[in-house]
Amino acid sequence: MTAQPAAVHRPDGLAVMFRPASIAVVGASAHEGKAGHAMVRALRHFPGTLHLVNPRGGDVLGRTALRSLREASDVDLAVLVVPPDAVPGALADARDAGVRAAVVCAGGFAESGPQGARIQERVVAVAQEAGIRLLGPNTSGFMNPVDRTTANFMPAVADLAPGSVGVVAQSGGVNLALAFLLARAGVGLRLGVGLGNAVDVDFPEVLDHLARDPATTAVGLHVEGVADGPALVAALRRTTARKPVVAFKVGRSDVSEFARSHTGALTGSYAVTRAALEQAGAVVVDSLEEMVAALVALRAVRLPASERLGVGLLTGQAGPGLVVTDALGARGIALPVLTDATQRRIAELLPPLTFQRNPVDTGRPSPTFADVVGAVAGDPGVDVVGVYALDEPGALDPVAALRPVGGRVLFASGGPPDALAARRAALDAAGIPLLSGPGDLATGLAAVVTDARVRAVADAPPLAPTRSVGRTLDEHEAKALLEAYGVRTPVRYVASGRAQARAALADLVSDGGRAVVKVLDADVLHKSDVGGVHVGVRDVAGLERALDAIDAIPGAVEGTARRYLLEEQAAPGFEVIVGAVRDVAFGPVVLLGLGGVTAELAAEPVLRLAPLSVARSEEMVRALPAAVLGGFRGLPPVDVAALAGVLRAVGQVVGEHGDITELDLNPVRLTADGPVVLDAVVVAPAAAPAAVVPLGGDTCPA
Amino acid sequence: MTAQPAAVHRPDGLAVMFRPASIAVVGASAHEGKAGHAMVRALRHFPGTLHLVNPRGGDVLGRTALRSLREASDVDLAVLVVPPDAVPGALADARDAGVRAAVVCAGGFAESGPQGARIQERVVAVAQEAGIRLLGPNTSGFMNPVDRTTANFMPAVADLAPGSVGVVAQSGGVNLALAFLLARAGVGLRLGVGLGNAVDVDFPEVLDHLARDPATTAVGLHVEGVADGPALVAALRRTTARKPVVAFKVGRSDVSEFARSHTGALTGSYAVTRAALEQAGAVVVDSLEEMVAALVALRAVRLPASERLGVGLLTGQAGPGLVVTDALGARGIALPVLTDATQRRIAELLPPLTFQRNPVDTGRPSPTFADVVGAVAGDPGVDVVGVYALDEPGALDPVAALRPVGGRVLFASGGPPDALAARRAALDAAGIPLLSGPGDLATGLAAVVTDARVRAVADAPPLAPTRSVGRTLDEHEAKALLEAYGVRTPVRYVASGRAQARAALADLVSDGGRAVVKVLDADVLHKSDVGGVHVGVRDVAGLERALDAIDAIPGAVEGTARRYLLEEQAAPGFEVIVGAVRDVAFGPVVLLGLGGVTAELAAEPVLRLAPLSVARSEEMVRALPAAVLGGFRGLPPVDVAALAGVLRAVGQVVGEHGDITELDLNPVRLTADGPVVLDAVVVAPAAAPAAVVPLGGDTCPA
Repeated sequence: MTAQPAAVHRPDGLAVMFRPASIAVVGASAHEGKAGHAMVRALRHFPGTLHLVNPRGGDVLGRTALRSLREASDVDLAVLVVPPDAVPGALADARDAGVRAAVVCAGGFAESGPQGARIQERVVAVAQEAGIRLLGPNTSGFMNPVDRTTANFMPAVADLAPGSVGVVAQSGGVNLALAFLLARAGVGLRLGVGLGNAVDVDFPEVLDHLARDPATTAVGLHVEGVADGPALVAALRRTTARKPVVAFKVGRSDVSEFARSHTGALTGSYAVTRAALEQAGAVVVDSLEEMVAALVALRAVRLPASERLGVGLLTGQAGPGLVVTDALGARGIALPVLTDATQRRIAELLPPLTFQRNPVDTGRPSPTFADVVGAVAGDPGVDVVGVYALDEPGALDPVAALRPVGGRVLFASGGPPDALAARRAALDAAGIPLLSGPGDLATGLAAVVTDARVRAVADAPPLAPTRSVGRTLDEHEAKALLEAYGVRTPVRYVASGRAQARAALADLVSDGGRAVVKVLDADVLHKSDVGGVHVGVRDVAGLERALDAIDAIPGAVEGTARRYLLEEQAAPGFEVIVGAVRDVAFGPVVLLGLGGVTAELAAEPVLRLAPLSVARSEEMVRALPAAVLGGFRGLPPVDVAALAGVLRAVGQVVGEHGDITELDLNPVRLTADGPVVLDAVVVAPAAAPAAVVPLGGDTCPA
Repeated sequence: MTAQPAAVHRPDGLAVMFRPASIAVVGASAHEGKAGHAMVRALRHFPGTLHLVNPRGGDVLGRTALRSLREASDVDLAVLVVPPDAVPGALADARDAGVRAAVVCAGGFAESGPQGARIQERVVAVAQEAGIRLLGPNTSGFMNPVDRTTANFMPAVADLAPGSVGVVAQSGGVNLALAFLLARAGVGLRLGVGLGNAVDVDFPEVLDHLARDPATTAVGLHVEGVADGPALVAALRRTTARKPVVAFKVGRSDVSEFARSHTGALTGSYAVTRAALEQAGAVVVDSLEEMVAALVALRAVRLPASERLGVGLLTGQAGPGLVVTDALGARGIALPVLTDATQRRIAELLPPLTFQRNPVDTGRPSPTFADVVGAVAGDPGVDVVGVYALDEPGALDPVAALRPVGGRVLFASGGPPDALAARRAALDAAGIPLLSGPGDLATGLAAVVTDARVRAVADAPPLAPTRSVGRTLDEHEAKALLEAYGVRTPVRYVASGRAQARAALADLVSDGGRAVVKVLDADVLHKSDVGGVHVGVRDVAGLERALDAIDAIPGAVEGTARRYLLEEQAAPGFEVIVGAVRDVAFGPVVLLGLGGVTAELAAEPVLRLAPLSVARSEEMVRALPAAVLGGFRGLPPVDVAALAGVLRAVGQVVGEHGDITELDLNPVRLTADGPVVLDAVVVAPAAAPAAVVPLGGDTCPA
């Protein structure tokens, strides 16, 4: 066990788990193929004290096994490779042996059904009573090659190369898959943890452990489902403030049924989780392969937070350079044109045969290659440089050429795998990530840019709910609530009876305007579909037709007359939908989408966790399609600040009112005078905490 | 040079290029770092006669260089590593030496500007006059490791492993990048060709060469721009009928400026090219890394053409299995639930702790693993099986377990790279592709499914244009043309003057219907924007208002009255856009998109090359969003056959009329009685061949 200077590394609850002085393997087996055998072989390089426990004793891989864990003492970590129903007893023995942490590998707990769930409850109870920290159950374990502590039932992990990348995976299998994909990319592992059912040790604590660990330079995060969203977000914010985190969330498609059977976790909303991870500063990728390329890049190259970074690209062969440029463009990353000064400098260094504005096509490497790299890196518009060149011994020494810009450059090279492997050590030492092809270079560059971008927007601090609305509101009440938060709505009258309605109409059309006549009833959903909304009413005849239609809507309470809402008809404008939901895992989420048919057929809505800062709300609006922002079909451009204000208000409303489960402003019309909310729905259960709890128990008022 | 039995391999024009008996390297250099030096080293394993040519003679890498190619004789292939302006002279010498094929490596030809273009013209002229086939210029060359003929200026290619994958890349650099990415994946190369400027040898001929080559099992295709679309499509159809082709098209984002500077090729329309490649039976991927995974899979596993294939998935660790399932789902590939019989069989083989409906989570490999694989492979709904399992020596022998289903199974494994490499040979021998992680396994499975799907839809044979429309048509003429092809339009009247208009209206509204009144003038574009379209007209007052507005539209020919189009107003329905364009490279293309605002904000339109077969036109309709197909917002479901008929008619019209440059039916309303074309635009230049040629010269009437 390598001791860390206390000043640098404050001890935490997990140090004893991941860097134990002594380990006991309970269920150690002499039979090859058994997990209890593989586990012992995986720990063959462990430098501390290793006890093997097997009820039948005997010899296991050349060591004498104890018949019971109670025969041992001063054991830091117990690795339990025994069937589920044997785990509670093993933990009891562990307590007697002074064990402070345990890894439970077996499956067959909560993920497998009610019976397993009951065993899992007993395991948790015993561990808590004994003060033993628990990893798992239902995990392959963890790997800490730096300290040669690889407690995992795959023997090959004992030979994983030590390094500086940390991995936190919900699945033990994904933890292993990532470890070997990283090895293939020539990247060593600092710590790899598979959480499994995560009855005790979970994402936040492991993230904080890695955030504080000076030997960790970058973190890979694999998420299936999240139990406590706010805790994950808070831990991620602490971690990404210190080092880059690359996250992969399962569930782009519907895999919920299989997922539940796995670690018992619900995959939750992919869109909400992805938004939360990015708001917390993580670089979200779409595959484990992309994660590896992103980690290769970010462990060596991290730039200050910025919403826009300029990428410079040098390429020895135009074709691969074109592939990289295209892949970046497909991710919305365009290469800035180099300044005239830079282009003049490059023109002095290269023959005038190739493209040199950015990307810079150097042709086959010449002695001036390093100077060209320097010129591109020195361009005021360039923050990070990507270089693609073939590995041509004698023609190019990438280390010498790139070292001067180490920390700001990524290198990808085509060449025989072994030749590249031979270069890697020298490149690593110079702080130059080596990627294996054009696609990985684009992924790495995009990761560097995204890591800086996601940290550039500050979020508002979490908001504790202090109020409740008590029940679902009707349109008038909902609009009144929003007005109190500064949201604009049309002038309106509430009329009970036709006389009031006629008076209201007279006032609304007095200046030649038109009126909108609606049914006012919180119980009438989809008002338009049932003839509850009538636009363009300008005279009494039209009003009466509208009211007749409204009165014909079934479901009015016996003996009570329908109530009507009369509003001034708003000016034209593009329509968007603003809404909020209370996510089971992450709490209040604000959404912005396109209105009308596009809501169903066009781009996904933009989601962000509430409450929203000014910067976040404006970033959210700028995420709308450019065709809309610029002014759709001759309409005025979107007033970013004004619409952002509506988004913040909605976030505030749903954040402060703990019982609102859903809020829909559909549509919000973006008129020349700013956004106007034409319809509003605020849904809340009839006040009764029990009814509220399952929807957001941890954030609803006491 | 390995002789191929003539019966199996009919000789073609490229055999002498790629399998020469003798080679001369012109520009052979003793100076390391020079391309002429690298080329000689790249050919160090060439088994035939190798001549080195250098004007100064002397010793080059231990061989005596000839001072001129004219000193040699019986040379099959000349590899020219000399500056552009020296190439014509070298080709003249080559002719005297009996050379039949040449590779021209140098850049600085058409891609670099007018001067280079002039040299390129001379090169082509000399080569044609001499009857010498030309590869390049501006290419790194080609690699044929099987015959140890690697004519490429990167020396490392001499040690590329021989194999069965062919590569045709527009860029010599991408050809090299792919060769090394394939090597990294443990896949050998049959032949890798970089076309460069492709003044002679181009895509179609190399594809046919590989299609006929019995040693080639799969082909990777890299495309920047296409000069002759129909020739590429025809060659691809011939090739994909025999073996799988995986294609990557540059240009998802706008890279045209850089691309032009590279091989001089325009990238053309990405959407059209992608559609053309898929119609021709190629599996189109989004990155070179995906291409490699797809080739790893398809070179060993190819299934009969089918629009739907069932994927079975076995996983030893649920987490990675979930990642694969999710990645397939994101590509629209769902895993079919296994039959009850299969599930019962699996229940006999595995403990009841895991998910077993598909994917099947086996847990750690047990002795029954092979039986479970067999059960899944035997399920009637399963065509291809993916297996993800850790490489656990002693616990699992993947070769033994998977050999019985070889040819229908893909294997991905987590483990140390060297351990996997050790397994590869045995897996290859058993016809089992080895992929390196969950993402690559999903890519490989998707490639196998897509390869079978793209071949399942038969296209109509090409159509030679026989007519022309002579000029841009007005709406009445355009609709008349479409009616002649069976497309339905509303009842309409052409009125010159108000009296005719009133008479037409009287007839149109006689049964209580409404009329639409429009300006009829081919010169008025965007009729709605200028007040040229008036809907819901039901009385003379309304008609007069409409006609006043139309008469106010500027641009009417002096002294002639406006003409009006009066139509019955169509029944409601969802609106789509059907159109056609004449692509510069690929000719007539039919387009289907959503109407209204969604046209700009929703999904990309569906594009297919015309003419359309019944199957193709229906496949095109089924590509619409499910929300539309099923009946959008309570509208009737889309009548697939009827809308497909409209698409075929449009393909026929634009295919038969060689001068139509654009055809727009916007909108086509999908009423309960079937699709009705509400507006139609047919654009053609005023008849004059000169004006037509640049738009589609090769397909316009003489």
